[in-house]
Amino acid sequence: MNSAKVAVVGASGYSGEELVRLLSLHPTAELVALTSRQFAGQSLAAVYPRFTGTRYGGLEFVGSEMAPILGSGARLVFLALPHGVAAEFAKPLVAAGLRVLDLSADFRIKDPAAYEEFYGEKAHAPELAAQSVYGLPELYRAKLRDAELVACPGCYPTSIILPLHPLVKARLIDVATIAVSSVSGVSGAGRTVKADFLFAECNESVRAYGVPKHRHLGEIEQELSLAHGGPVMISFTPHLMPVTRGIHTTIFATLSPGVEPGRIGEAMHAAYDREPFVRLLGPSSLPDTKHVTGTNFLDVAWRHDPRTNRVVLLSAEDNLVKGAAGQAVQCLNVMCGWAESTGLL
Amino acid sequence: MNSAKVAVVGASGYSGEELVRLLSLHPTAELVALTSRQFAGQSLAAVYPRFTGTRYGGLEFVGSEMAPILGSGARLVFLALPHGVAAEFAKPLVAAGLRVLDLSADFRIKDPAAYEEFYGEKAHAPELAAQSVYGLPELYRAKLRDAELVACPGCYPTSIILPLHPLVKARLIDVATIAVSSVSGVSGAGRTVKADFLFAECNESVRAYGVPKHRHLGEIEQELSLAHGGPVMISFTPHLMPVTRGIHTTIFATLSPGVEPGRIGEAMHAAYDREPFVRLLGPSSLPDTKHVTGTNFLDVAWRHDPRTNRVVLLSAEDNLVKGAAGQAVQCLNVMCGWAESTGLL
Amino acid sequence: MNSAKVAVVGASGYSGEELVRLLSLHPTAELVALTSRQFAGQSLAAVYPRFTGTRYGGLEFVGSEMAPILGSGARLVFLALPHGVAAEFAKPLVAAGLRVLDLSADFRIKDPAAYEEFYGEKAHAPELAAQSVYGLPELYRAKLRDAELVACPGCYPTSIILPLHPLVKARLIDVATIAVSSVSGVSGAGRTVKADFLFAECNESVRAYGVPKHRHLGEIEQELSLAHGGPVMISFTPHLMPVTRGIHTTIFATLSPGVEPGRIGEAMHAAYDREPFVRLLGPSSLPDTKHVTGTNFLDVAWRHDPRTNRVVLLSAEDNLVKGAAGQAVQCLNVMCGWAESTGLL
Amino acid sequence: MNSAKVAVVGASGYSGEELVRLLSLHPTAELVALTSRQFAGQSLAAVYPRFTGTRYGGLEFVGSEMAPILGSGARLVFLALPHGVAAEFAKPLVAAGLRVLDLSADFRIKDPAAYEEFYGEKAHAPELAAQSVYGLPELYRAKLRDAELVACPGCYPTSIILPLHPLVKARLIDVATIAVSSVSGVSGAGRTVKADFLFAECNESVRAYGVPKHRHLGEIEQELSLAHGGPVMISFTPHLMPVTRGIHTTIFATLSPGVEPGRIGEAMHAAYDREPFVRLLGPSSLPDTKHVTGTNFLDVAWRHDPRTNRVVLLSAEDNLVKGAAGQAVQCLNVMCGWAESTGLL
Repeated sequence: MNSAKVAVVGASGYSGEELVRLLSLHPTAELVALTSRQFAGQSLAAVYPRFTGTRYGGLEFVGSEMAPILGSGARLVFLALPHGVAAEFAKPLVAAGLRVLDLSADFRIKDPAAYEEFYGEKAHAPELAAQSVYGLPELYRAKLRDAELVACPGCYPTSIILPLHPLVKARLIDVATIAVSSVSGVSGAGRTVKADFLFAECNESVRAYGVPKHRHLGEIEQELSLAHGGPVMISFTPHLMPVTRGIHTTIFATLSPGVEPGRIGEAMHAAYDREPFVRLLGPSSLPDTKHVTGTNFLDVAWRHDPRTNRVVLLSAEDNLVKGAAGQAVQCLNVMCGWAESTGLL
Repeated sequence: MNSAKVAVVGASGYSGEELVRLLSLHPTAELVALTSRQFAGQSLAAVYPRFTGTRYGGLEFVGSEMAPILGSGARLVFLALPHGVAAEFAKPLVAAGLRVLDLSADFRIKDPAAYEEFYGEKAHAPELAAQSVYGLPELYRAKLRDAELVACPGCYPTSIILPLHPLVKARLIDVATIAVSSVSGVSGAGRTVKADFLFAECNESVRAYGVPKHRHLGEIEQELSLAHGGPVMISFTPHLMPVTRGIHTTIFATLSPGVEPGRIGEAMHAAYDREPFVRLLGPSSLPDTKHVTGTNFLDVAWRHDPRTNRVVLLSAEDNLVKGAAGQAVQCLNVMCGWAESTGLL
Repeated sequence: MNSAKVAVVGASGYSGEELVRLLSLHPTAELVALTSRQFAGQSLAAVYPRFTGTRYGGLEFVGSEMAPILGSGARLVFLALPHGVAAEFAKPLVAAGLRVLDLSADFRIKDPAAYEEFYGEKAHAPELAAQSVYGLPELYRAKLRDAELVACPGCYPTSIILPLHPLVKARLIDVATIAVSSVSGVSGAGRTVKADFLFAECNESVRAYGVPKHRHLGEIEQELSLAHGGPVMISFTPHLMPVTRGIHTTIFATLSPGVEPGRIGEAMHAAYDREPFVRLLGPSSLPDTKHVTGTNFLDVAWRHDPRTNRVVLLSAEDNLVKGAAGQAVQCLNVMCGWAESTGLL
Repeated sequence: MNSAKVAVVGASGYSGEELVRLLSLHPTAELVALTSRQFAGQSLAAVYPRFTGTRYGGLEFVGSEMAPILGSGARLVFLALPHGVAAEFAKPLVAAGLRVLDLSADFRIKDPAAYEEFYGEKAHAPELAAQSVYGLPELYRAKLRDAELVACPGCYPTSIILPLHPLVKARLIDVATIAVSSVSGVSGAGRTVKADFLFAECNESVRAYGVPKHRHLGEIEQELSLAHGGPVMISFTPHLMPVTRGIHTTIFATLSPGVEPGRIGEAMHAAYDREPFVRLLGPSSLPDTKHVTGTNFLDVAWRHDPRTNRVVLLSAEDNLVKGAAGQAVQCLNVMCGWAESTGLL
């Protein structure tokens, strides 16, 4: 396999840090530049002691400007930046012929009006969003191979879209009845220095937020609408719980009239049996975030309740891996023609 | 206010321990007997070091038999026992003219067939269950005053029934659309010595269980059906999260046709504005388990989503207090004619 | 018992919040004023949802100025302020004849040079420090009765001084050999909004800090030197661990030549058997922070190791209660002539 | 590099599970047999869902007997068994010419009397213990190359011996003054199903245990005595804290008379600068367990306190990696002539 040089722009948050951890273990990707406004001039190990003595511990952060990125020889660039800022970087990088994997929300939503509805501001680069590929390899593997710009999904959307997609596509469930409750670890809030995320405020606490209209609904409903072939609107309530990593999602939906419950499992197996990172659990298991922490797996289970004719879908992932950095590396593998699990298993 | 002598039978689990803690702080209840098969002959403080130097630290456990309970002079008896066992104690106690507050499931479900459906065994004392009062003071205050046998609600049901009751009763929501996701602290599993509840198995973990038919559905659907005036069946998925105490519940339901969203809040305020232990949160707050830990409060909020015409109800409680021991003490206060918040505020 | 009006100045940190919680439960103290620069004009419940529906939930914060404090009718004032700021408030309050209980470090250290050594700045009011009483009721009960200014101890010092005091005073241990390792919950850092105290930085983490010269050494060595009748210098390493509340302290010291190990226990029992808030554990128990959380107890155990002739002293407390607010209320009880455990048991 | 076939006997505890995780990532070790009395006949993934879809997920546990181990073709065998049981397996395996890496205590202590003193039972195979190599590569690398039987160190000893060894050997500290306080995550207790290790008993708790004579003192003092060239006895207090993984150790010792403090750092750097898994932290950093979790690193720092002339040594490791399974793999690498960090970085 050929190797490829990559850069990470904005490696000062948890997703960026996780990306560097995964790239340290990757046999064919070579990290050649790390940028951070805040840490320019310091080594990776000086900023994140965890990396001392590892492959990139001595790599120095450069400033977040075009020149050092372009000069690094990187052919692919990960953007781990706040939304809005990411678009500013993506434009010149794509223009310069580099392939970009963006972990922000800037290119996930194709419809600028939808972006504006959910983010409360104008879409930052709608023309680029239009040509981007949504970075869910399970759905867009073929398009990812030649993608110039990949919009990596949000953490919640990955855990919601994948379990629902085969059922929505096959019209096995009534899309008007979908209700989703997710619980996320606190790293999902990023390294945001706010009182809300202090240890003593999060420990021994669980609370909902973003009710009833969390931003991630934009991309979730976009992908479900595409699968359904018509507009889908769902309910979604995220919660914060006292773990560092992990998202658990529970989805309720009513079966479409006349659908045999057994078809749920058939659709799931048809969709995911050959996927390296979606694990369908058997009838005696339910997902548990601790089984996926540090891995790129999404664990999925389902149960039909004959009393209500609802199906309950359950999934678990590591929000920083399959929900962010790991999925981006999975996309990288597809883009570079490497085995999809390279560096991830 | 008159004082009353009380006993606690089976004080070796977390609910029983919490009951003793609350009774220690209660000005008019006097704890005169504590029973435990396992700990008979030892002092409370020897078994639970936390109680050393407190009001009942020196009280000795007696064996779990009738004689010492009847001989203690207690007029009211709390049963903190496994289901099945509780019924064995309740029968002779009630027959002897003592008033019983049972924290198990034995008397919660009036219909023996429903008990058998959800618990997989015959109802243990259906004739007693028929005359028991369900121990939710907010719904059954009047009946509790003279109750001989109180069936204290389960931890999840309290957090689910109270938010839904006013809406179901006023037919503001379509009962066929109710879906509930709850997250509980690990003390909800009791002091059960199983590998599943070891620290290293629960920490950094969130997982669902009892899908799709958890036992608590029996009492939840019974109370909602009574409010609705007809059978109600709902979806309910409980989860375990790594906190010691606390339940957070999120409920989705579609508004009945033609209902103005504003009527949700009106019904809530009409039902609970005068309740000492139900706190309705305003438009800028959502429940957080850490605000109710150690207290007898149930915090409740709601949001209407015009996109889907669903209401999202959210609640938080301490599973060992409002979800168990605190609610039992609230019932005690009603039964004894004391101010309802005595010893609880 | 007479009641007394009290005020809390600076109730926006964890110690201040805990003070309000304890005063809510206190039968003879009446909280008449709460000050906070940040929250002036808002009710306690609006700022801390936990207090909604409780005794002082409707009390409004006033600005942190002299006029409203003096106008409130309070006879005793708690200061829950950063060091340096506390002194600014204490001076006019004491001058106005109010009795002050200060939870900061400003008056704990009698020797201005020692204060400067450990805090890196001039002592803020050395003349007041000279006349203050160190707020450890177990050591200074008699002086506290008439104290005008009480310097409430730090959280670590309480857990260190009390176990050591009887042994140092009786010269049973060699003071040159004392080494102390403490572990504290994160609330000990206060509600400080720093990246270091974010959930994801503290969870699944334990780390030392303040090595080798933590500020609390100043007051610890002052009190041990007084007990010893000569200068004492010790080693002390504090650590942060992922719990909200609790301090556990482990102390190593070599017995003085010729001392029988049995004398350790005798000295402990002689000192603390009649103390309401020091619990001496027996030979089969060791302190556990979860047994003291939410209480004003300090649990203490000791073991002699014949191999090394060292004694190991172990203690546990809730850093916000016996380590801060609870101890201040205990002092209040002494100052007002109330039973020492009023509102604390 | 040549590859080698290995087996893991007793892979049902946390150390065994971690060993399998590390071997999954190892490029030159091939796991050919996994034994477990309890799980024989089930696949690894069925028992530990975390391994589903990974390299050894489909590997089936065989019974814990000699035949399947010998028949597997393994040349090296890891024993992850309780002490006492390990010796029973080691004897025939060594006799059959297989190389054994034992993670239990059975062969760590050379002196049978010392074993009996600390474990309260006769040494299980003193003649084998005599010829075993203590599996600390930093101290015994040369001997490990040809070792037939490796006694992998305990979790605490690794974190204590390595920081102390260079200072004891160079007689920079007074060995009579060494006092050690360690804090461990709960996985250190193994998958022991006891009430003490339930989530609700460990969460929000810190407590000491094994005071004053924990079993690990045997091997710690053996190795320090060898370094010192004479008997060393120390004080050691372990504590349990609410994290899954991680040990933090804090050591106090007085400098030998006339020793310049600067020599501490010199000795540390001379000993460890070339070690791949000991990271010496600089003057502005202190160890934090979260920086080593999941890795084979031991992070070490030190501070001299001129006031007391003591040095404080601090270290952090993952108790399941450098404290157990990772160190065993590091030994494997040495034994097989592979680069020492193979599969570990």
